[in-house]
Amino acid sequence: MSFDKLQRKIDSLKNPTVAGLDPLPEYIPEHIMRKHIAEKGETLAAAADAYFEFNRGLIDALCDVVPAVKPQSAYYELLGYEGIRALKKTADYAKSKGLYVIGDVKRGDIGSTAEAYAAAYLGGLKIGNSEFRPFDLDAVTVSAYLGSDGVKPFLDACVQYDKAIFVLVKTSNPSAAEFQDLISDGEKVYITLGGLMEKLSMDTLGEYGYTRIGAVAGATYPEDIKFLRERLRHTFFLVPGYGAQGGTADDVRCAFDKDGRGAIVNSSRAILCAWRKTGNNGLDFAEAARNEALDMRGKLRKAVY
Amino acid sequence: MSFDKLQRKIDSLKNPTVAGLDPLPEYIPEHIMRKHIAEKGETLAAAADAYFEFNRGLIDALCDVVPAVKPQSAYYELLGYEGIRALKKTADYAKSKGLYVIGDVKRGDIGSTAEAYAAAYLGGLKIGNSEFRPFDLDAVTVSAYLGSDGVKPFLDACVQYDKAIFVLVKTSNPSAAEFQDLISDGEKVYITLGGLMEKLSMDTLGEYGYTRIGAVAGATYPEDIKFLRERLRHTFFLVPGYGAQGGTADDVRCAFDKDGRGAIVNSSRAILCAWRKTGNNGLDFAEAARNEALDMRGKLRKAVY
Repeated sequence: MSFDKLQRKIDSLKNPTVAGLDPLPEYIPEHIMRKHIAEKGETLAAAADAYFEFNRGLIDALCDVVPAVKPQSAYYELLGYEGIRALKKTADYAKSKGLYVIGDVKRGDIGSTAEAYAAAYLGGLKIGNSEFRPFDLDAVTVSAYLGSDGVKPFLDACVQYDKAIFVLVKTSNPSAAEFQDLISDGEKVYITLGGLMEKLSMDTLGEYGYTRIGAVAGATYPEDIKFLRERLRHTFFLVPGYGAQGGTADDVRCAFDKDGRGAIVNSSRAILCAWRKTGNNGLDFAEAARNEALDMRGKLRKAVY
Repeated sequence: MSFDKLQRKIDSLKNPTVAGLDPLPEYIPEHIMRKHIAEKGETLAAAADAYFEFNRGLIDALCDVVPAVKPQSAYYELLGYEGIRALKKTADYAKSKGLYVIGDVKRGDIGSTAEAYAAAYLGGLKIGNSEFRPFDLDAVTVSAYLGSDGVKPFLDACVQYDKAIFVLVKTSNPSAAEFQDLISDGEKVYITLGGLMEKLSMDTLGEYGYTRIGAVAGATYPEDIKFLRERLRHTFFLVPGYGAQGGTADDVRCAFDKDGRGAIVNSSRAILCAWRKTGNNGLDFAEAARNEALDMRGKLRKAVY
């Protein structure tokens, strides 16, 4: 869905948080993992079932607090096709609870391959006369190292199916600067890239003034976010790096426009693994996640609104 | 597996070709698709079964001609988890026939997420006390826009499990130049990136002098390949863009070292869809693919050796 729908959802909950659903086997409370191993043995299928039960509990506990969830595809792919099944079930369940679902897939390719990715995650395909929407996510993350003809097929799918994408512009990791900050013609590469993406999508402006191509802009580089916000007035930001990676509520403030709109901040492990700090072996994982999300909401509300 | 094994396989067949296994529903001959729809209806599962039957036929026809196959993940993801199952079955079957399998996944992320991707495609994980190797491919393609800490987890997995990766350096598409050719400090971004990758992996040199990090270098930019070959003496190249995208055998010659080693050239649609030109409705798809691969082998032998 376009960023209008995401922004409306953020406004209604007064909370610009997206909860990352990034399960690893060791993040799943033991009672859940044990139950599924009892059913299906020590198998990838059992772990995938445990992922889904964990995610369902998190979604139930978070769906009136956060507007969006962001499953990280890597953790599901780790369980092979059984994991992809759990990813699909998780996305469907989150949507049934009214959540906006951002697939963190960081795909990037060219021509018909990019079209296939866009069709898989945002659009659909036909088998014979029957139509399918394999994942039908609201948005995905996209890598643009291959240039705009790697992004265009995603943008076309966004327009056709009322979706949006976030292109990797400035990531939150320590070595992000190695290529992203190289200076060419007086401009850092990530700025050039962000500018090209905004330009490419200017005919897709929504009611809040944002195009269908958003940008990933890491909380760990607040000066860079500030600069990006000034430069890319029509670009919605997905901000990773809050919490575990060191970004604070103050660091992310400048990702937002003057009305407190135009960005959403991700938190994954802090919410997902909040149960590790309560000393109840994960029996209270959902409540612990909810409390952590409420705490983050409080901090963001204070900083942003 | 390291590039030594790939190079030995290339030498033994005297053919530096990798056949792309990039099925789309419309690339599958009608008699195959019809058979599986009769069995499972117009479903993603039927299409996935058709993918596998098509791939198995191709692998049987090609396994004594080409040393390697390269399934493009996008086309499998397009069929949801059923497609991923077909990808896994295809990779296993190809390995059982002695082929080197390069997963064209172009994954790229950071920290524990990159570790999860590396474990999924190259390494393994434990569920309880049981170990799993979800995909166990020989090599994958990797995007390095996030910098070296996005690549390091893949490199670690390469060393631990005797695998290799190809990092996107100079891609074959028209807009590749938008970011890859930006000049910073007198050097194009893709050259800087390629150099950093070689440096990062210099302690993984194999017997032919290549590290475990190879590079994608598009056949459509022969001058760039030539420059990369001179500059990156220890980097094995995966060369897309031959045939359908316009690259010729002469264009790719300069990807190879003076002994005719250090590169492999991809062909996807020309081999996959060779049956479309013979007028037999795909009944001869395997034979047509084999003839096309033999033709390409002839041209490459002439140009390279």
